[in-house]
Amino acid sequence: MALAQDDRFTDVGRLVVRCPDRPGIVAVLSGLMADVGANITDSQQHSSDPSGGTFTLRLEFVLAGLAERRAELERRLAGLAGEWRLTWRLVDASHRPTIAVFVSRTDHVLQELVYRVRAGDLRADIVAVISNHPDLEPVAAAAGIPFHQVPVAPDTKAAAETRALEIVGDADLVVLARYMQIVSPEFCARFPERLINIHHSFLPAFVGANPYRAAHDRGVKLIGATAHYVTAELDAGPIIEQEVARVDHRATVEDMRRVGRYVERQVLAQAVTWHVEDRVIVEGDRTIVFA
Amino acid sequence: MALAQDDRFTDVGRLVVRCPDRPGIVAVLSGLMADVGANITDSQQHSSDPSGGTFTLRLEFVLAGLAERRAELERRLAGLAGEWRLTWRLVDASHRPTIAVFVSRTDHVLQELVYRVRAGDLRADIVAVISNHPDLEPVAAAAGIPFHQVPVAPDTKAAAETRALEIVGDADLVVLARYMQIVSPEFCARFPERLINIHHSFLPAFVGANPYRAAHDRGVKLIGATAHYVTAELDAGPIIEQEVARVDHRATVEDMRRVGRYVERQVLAQAVTWHVEDRVIVEGDRTIVFA
Amino acid sequence: MALAQDDRFTDVGRLVVRCPDRPGIVAVLSGLMADVGANITDSQQHSSDPSGGTFTLRLEFVLAGLAERRAELERRLAGLAGEWRLTWRLVDASHRPTIAVFVSRTDHVLQELVYRVRAGDLRADIVAVISNHPDLEPVAAAAGIPFHQVPVAPDTKAAAETRALEIVGDADLVVLARYMQIVSPEFCARFPERLINIHHSFLPAFVGANPYRAAHDRGVKLIGATAHYVTAELDAGPIIEQEVARVDHRATVEDMRRVGRYVERQVLAQAVTWHVEDRVIVEGDRTIVFA
Amino acid sequence: MALAQDDRFTDVGRLVVRCPDRPGIVAVLSGLMADVGANITDSQQHSSDPSGGTFTLRLEFVLAGLAERRAELERRLAGLAGEWRLTWRLVDASHRPTIAVFVSRTDHVLQELVYRVRAGDLRADIVAVISNHPDLEPVAAAAGIPFHQVPVAPDTKAAAETRALEIVGDADLVVLARYMQIVSPEFCARFPERLINIHHSFLPAFVGANPYRAAHDRGVKLIGATAHYVTAELDAGPIIEQEVARVDHRATVEDMRRVGRYVERQVLAQAVTWHVEDRVIVEGDRTIVFA
Repeated sequence: MALAQDDRFTDVGRLVVRCPDRPGIVAVLSGLMADVGANITDSQQHSSDPSGGTFTLRLEFVLAGLAERRAELERRLAGLAGEWRLTWRLVDASHRPTIAVFVSRTDHVLQELVYRVRAGDLRADIVAVISNHPDLEPVAAAAGIPFHQVPVAPDTKAAAETRALEIVGDADLVVLARYMQIVSPEFCARFPERLINIHHSFLPAFVGANPYRAAHDRGVKLIGATAHYVTAELDAGPIIEQEVARVDHRATVEDMRRVGRYVERQVLAQAVTWHVEDRVIVEGDRTIVFA
Repeated sequence: MALAQDDRFTDVGRLVVRCPDRPGIVAVLSGLMADVGANITDSQQHSSDPSGGTFTLRLEFVLAGLAERRAELERRLAGLAGEWRLTWRLVDASHRPTIAVFVSRTDHVLQELVYRVRAGDLRADIVAVISNHPDLEPVAAAAGIPFHQVPVAPDTKAAAETRALEIVGDADLVVLARYMQIVSPEFCARFPERLINIHHSFLPAFVGANPYRAAHDRGVKLIGATAHYVTAELDAGPIIEQEVARVDHRATVEDMRRVGRYVERQVLAQAVTWHVEDRVIVEGDRTIVFA
Repeated sequence: MALAQDDRFTDVGRLVVRCPDRPGIVAVLSGLMADVGANITDSQQHSSDPSGGTFTLRLEFVLAGLAERRAELERRLAGLAGEWRLTWRLVDASHRPTIAVFVSRTDHVLQELVYRVRAGDLRADIVAVISNHPDLEPVAAAAGIPFHQVPVAPDTKAAAETRALEIVGDADLVVLARYMQIVSPEFCARFPERLINIHHSFLPAFVGANPYRAAHDRGVKLIGATAHYVTAELDAGPIIEQEVARVDHRATVEDMRRVGRYVERQVLAQAVTWHVEDRVIVEGDRTIVFA
Repeated sequence: MALAQDDRFTDVGRLVVRCPDRPGIVAVLSGLMADVGANITDSQQHSSDPSGGTFTLRLEFVLAGLAERRAELERRLAGLAGEWRLTWRLVDASHRPTIAVFVSRTDHVLQELVYRVRAGDLRADIVAVISNHPDLEPVAAAAGIPFHQVPVAPDTKAAAETRALEIVGDADLVVLARYMQIVSPEFCARFPERLINIHHSFLPAFVGANPYRAAHDRGVKLIGATAHYVTAELDAGPIIEQEVARVDHRATVEDMRRVGRYVERQVLAQAVTWHVEDRVIVEGDRTIVFA
């Protein structure tokens, strides 16, 4: 489902920088951009603490001939890295990241990702759909995406993950789109800050299985969904996005599931979109989202 | 702060009925209302289960001379109670319930209740403000409400509750409006389904103390507030209303507290308003809210 | 795209009744339902005015053997119609209404309707997609829905409408899902209270063409969408549902269009769902929605 | 109602700059800040167009001894102004702006402003309440704010405005908090970009008088409020903030007014807060809000 290049992104770059907060860092970085002739079109920054914290900056810029001049930019950034203790990521916005999507039986989140890619709202390419069940093969086929069934059973779990890793290959991002299996800590470790899950509750309420049942039993008046990076600790990774929807006393567990589907698809699609636009930066157990 | 009678409520009655769900119950009750000449102006009902559950009905009606004819209505309802296993509550809408409000040091929720009573949006009379601190005496005084300071220390807690109970007297409703003390199970038991608390989180996330700190540490993207009936188990009573507000990575714990105040006052005021309008019915651990 | 019967709706009926408001009407109707042995599972009512207005009632009920007993119910309702000046509609909930959808070039609303039918959230069958452009033929084809291109030019408009009417046939509902043509008053008159349009603004702001451009120029901070029944007067029919989304100063007209798509699809799908569940009743220029 | 200085704002400055967009402007300004030893703690920027538009920047910074070093900063900014065609505003965050508030009979918006000032959420001082009616004198008195009744009649309007201008004096901001009089173009011209009104509808829907009546008649499903800068053209000035609340078919005009009050107070208080924090910049008919 690779789409054609989009002129809006030609020569557009993004620079995400982190370093200890010190006066002058903005001047140094914007000076560098001015020196090479880049026009900064968007800039967002965050200081984790008024003094002594971490400084995070995301720049969007236009630089004629970005592809050719990228090496120069990187060399100059590298030149600053030591003195300012910078870590940085430089991205050509015309690059379309690749995504591998894990699903089980429900299709609403996958459908939404497919729709948004097609509509041009999510600039990425879904390169594989992987499932422990065969049900969603037609959805992938209709979208022209290779579908891989990788069954999981208690005693084949390790082998299944190995197989899944082969399929994922060097995809830029892995998305668990209502994949009803717990992935291993080793699997998580393979995709640091690039493995996103949608949990069907307003975390940290209702961790674990069957959150709509638990939400119903607790009598909540809002149900929610949470997109987060996956870490080894179940449902505890850094939260990227959350949203809720109102329910009332008439709502059965099944009604909550139905209403929740629309929240889940919105939340995950938003989180994935922000991620591929380099708007999400992990800071400890939390995220910075330059929305 | 007692206000004058409001003509809109003259001869307006409310009937809340619960019974095992059986075909014909609506006909029997609406037949009774028609017989006495009442015009049903609003009706909401709920069946807890398609079959074999509990039926709940809330009627608003106009009946000329309601005050005089109330005894007749009650007699007729009593006549049905045995056969249909009814429990019921009949309310004259012109009655203004009385509320005792417990506070500590923060005034935002109390201020909101005072404002809504004055504005006529909350038809009730706040008859006492009780606090373990002196800080909010001026707020009560400005509103013309008796203020009672009842200090609480670990070894005087029982005596303090006894004193508070005397002050509350026969108030129709007790509201904990950011009262930073845990009330005893005995206290809770004195006000079944008429003791409302505002908890400053989206329950069941962040039970207990300092929920904004906990929310900040978890990195949530929405903060919430929950109004609930208080039961012996801390923060676990039936939820009446919840709402959330969006925060981002820039929000400190203090920012969350500030944003949260506006959510808390809205949620508690809404819950109290619904309660005094007889719109909230407890069903096990949950509530039915005929909003 | 006809789906199998759903047992949840077997023997479930809906009765929508309107009449001048008079004491006793609820008793009469619920008495009738009790007499025939129906169990009322949901009931919502509205009085347009405390005195002398119009009374509207929507009942959901379970009646064993509904299909066989429908004639009896209708006969009894007809028996009341004269005295109480009733108009009524009796619906077997297991009936799946048919929908004809008009589109032009953008697919997001159609895709959403198709998704919701498939997911079982919208219990209806889309029987025809009609467009003045060929672009969305693949979307219809993928969903197994007959697609009809009916080009419209200034001098062929009447003939095109005639052709469209033939295709619509006796569909229960006609939906204009971002159909970028103005339909004639005669066309509107053919589908009273069963022709729904999505307008891409918060009506009555920005009637007419290019509302996102107008919204951008006015500098609004929220953009909206409105689903309404279509009447002869452009963008002035009774509103069924509206929703908004937040935008900021960075949003271009194109950004507003993109954000708006997600609002439009949600609003139209909600309106259509309520309509096919017999929850929407037109009252003059407004609607009653028993959501 | 002047409150004590708040240490959080000592040595905190804000710089708002506008100029034609040119590469290098960020480097120049951040270089200047670095040179004087200021630490930029927040930075937001906006380019009105990818090429050839207007560049707007808002910086928050900490500079030890800001009060003493302000002249130096201003001199250096002035030195850049010619070459870069800068307009700029430099603000000491510890300065509390003064506000004159115009009201008529309803108090909800005034009460909210008073509450937020007291709570410390709105860092400003309300120095005068001016009204064409005497009703809200007690509200002003309770808050310790001078109250001035300036009656307005058709033939005394000019004199009344003259008197009002004297009272306003050199207040930093004028707020029309449900002031039910139309102010003259001359009055508007006296307070360019510092005269804020709350209109009780979602503009541009329902301009003019009695918007809730108009909203009810149109049958909208959301009601709204709009805070905007006042210009000579009624209800057409640049919008700062808007919000909506849901209503249903049961809502009378009076119900809409009641619900609307809570939206109005929230919207106006938010707009005023952003304004006094120098977060709102007018750009033609629209605003940039660095929220």
